[in-house]
Amino acid sequence: MERKKITAVDCTIRDGGLMNNSQFDLAMVRAAFKACCDAGIDYCELGYRNSKDMFDPAEFGPWRFCDEHDLVAATEGIDRRNTKIALMMDAHKSRPEDLLPANESVVDLIRVATYVKDKNLAIRLENHAKELGYETAINIMAISHAHMPDLEVFLNDVEVETQAEVINIVDSFGSMYMDQLHYMISKFHMHLKTKAVGVHFHNNQQLAFANTMEGIIHGATWADATMNGLGRGAGNCPLELLISFLKNPDLDILPVLECIGEHVIPLKKSIAWGYHIPYMITGILNQHPLPAIKWMKDPDNTDYLKFYAEVDDG
Amino acid sequence: MERKKITAVDCTIRDGGLMNNSQFDLAMVRAAFKACCDAGIDYCELGYRNSKDMFDPAEFGPWRFCDEHDLVAATEGIDRRNTKIALMMDAHKSRPEDLLPANESVVDLIRVATYVKDKNLAIRLENHAKELGYETAINIMAISHAHMPDLEVFLNDVEVETQAEVINIVDSFGSMYMDQLHYMISKFHMHLKTKAVGVHFHNNQQLAFANTMEGIIHGATWADATMNGLGRGAGNCPLELLISFLKNPDLDILPVLECIGEHVIPLKKSIAWGYHIPYMITGILNQHPLPAIKWMKDPDNTDYLKFYAEVDDG
Repeated sequence: MERKKITAVDCTIRDGGLMNNSQFDLAMVRAAFKACCDAGIDYCELGYRNSKDMFDPAEFGPWRFCDEHDLVAATEGIDRRNTKIALMMDAHKSRPEDLLPANESVVDLIRVATYVKDKNLAIRLENHAKELGYETAINIMAISHAHMPDLEVFLNDVEVETQAEVINIVDSFGSMYMDQLHYMISKFHMHLKTKAVGVHFHNNQQLAFANTMEGIIHGATWADATMNGLGRGAGNCPLELLISFLKNPDLDILPVLECIGEHVIPLKKSIAWGYHIPYMITGILNQHPLPAIKWMKDPDNTDYLKFYAEVDDG
Repeated sequence: MERKKITAVDCTIRDGGLMNNSQFDLAMVRAAFKACCDAGIDYCELGYRNSKDMFDPAEFGPWRFCDEHDLVAATEGIDRRNTKIALMMDAHKSRPEDLLPANESVVDLIRVATYVKDKNLAIRLENHAKELGYETAINIMAISHAHMPDLEVFLNDVEVETQAEVINIVDSFGSMYMDQLHYMISKFHMHLKTKAVGVHFHNNQQLAFANTMEGIIHGATWADATMNGLGRGAGNCPLELLISFLKNPDLDILPVLECIGEHVIPLKKSIAWGYHIPYMITGILNQHPLPAIKWMKDPDNTDYLKFYAEVDDG
């Protein structure tokens, strides 16, 4: 079955930037953008536009802020074909005034990332971006920790108070099994009558791709992925696997494979993403990956019993 | 939901041995066996009993042959609790006369691995092992390449002509999606009225664990897994993820994590198992992983377009 209507979002630079303070060099960002364009990916998310009040530009690279001139440098001269540019703004770490009107920006889509508790910040930021002329999305992070009644109120409010094109289920901790996803996605469909549902998974239990497929089979029409799964902790759904699954003749896996070989694999020397036991442990315990990311600073420390005992609050 | 009735088979040493000519040192094999016993795993598969006429003992380690004295060395002094010992015999690479009567052996379960075309060799070998007093299983390899009518005849004959406890679906190429698994498992259930169905997956598309869960949800009652996924090419369903999923209070993840930290992770320096782009490519193309395994001898060769062109016969 061909799945033409799935909107694919590459977030290699954005989610991968959580592992290196968004310190990708320009050549890598241009290569990733070009690969997305050549591969037929719908959106390429080039980073965050977060606040310089909250992230020190001496510590964080340009893709944490995505100033317009950096975005121009990353994309000019590349044939965009049908690929649009997305940015993420954390609801609690962004300033609305950092957004230009859409017709003065190269950005097409603003994705507001939020926890359930920051609902009103998120809705206000989405409304602002929409007024400026952007397409908008809301990504509900750490959804495996949400109180379901609060989440249902959130979904209802988002349906009524925003014009976001898509609301994304974000399994930040990589803890979700397929039956939990079925439950979650049914709640999304119940409340979101006028919006698409998207999915964003992490690979702590090697389920990011499987859950993405399962989400699509159950009605999600937007899907996030990253090249070779580059992303926070265990990483994300690999874009190459998603393309292979979708069987969409407008998508081409080869530019993605080329970019992975030339630009992503070399990062393995400095960034420990992908399936590793510490990430697996926080995933099965439904916990934030931060302790695992810290532990992985010394990948030779394989005393997993110690790590398990440290993070297991059960 | 607790899944008490799932029979878990660890095949770390057996499947991992396909990556190092079964050259594990004795300390590693003893540690893996002890971890299985302590974790409550039902069967620990310690290797192959294949023919020394077909595998040169100068080239292949003891776990390709599993002579009884080596099995005794690997297991003596370890409290087996409820863990039984399994061996694999390739139907086309084994000699029936290499099997002792079960009551003179430490082995409990003989698993006959076969291609569909070697059906009659497999049935004869299974019958022989059963007559000698062993539990028996048949693993149908490379099942994604089987002609379905031939496979159905095989299943029917296995049902009528053997007393095997379990017949295993083996996705050797890691090419199977969940809907293909659903189709396959329904055929197994249709023909195998008196036998259990088991599953053995490879991780070329990061689906080994997901498909194992999906197989269990659809009625498989035996599941293969390996520690940290150690196995041929992209490896297998990680045992630690399977244990976490099963929620069986008789299983304990900690001995497995300890063994992974002390014995499995150090092998990463010499064995390139796990998700890598060349394995992914043979997986999505439904091909044998051998070209990818050869390519991975030089992991710094990331010219994936060249590899894709070499193996793509489409």
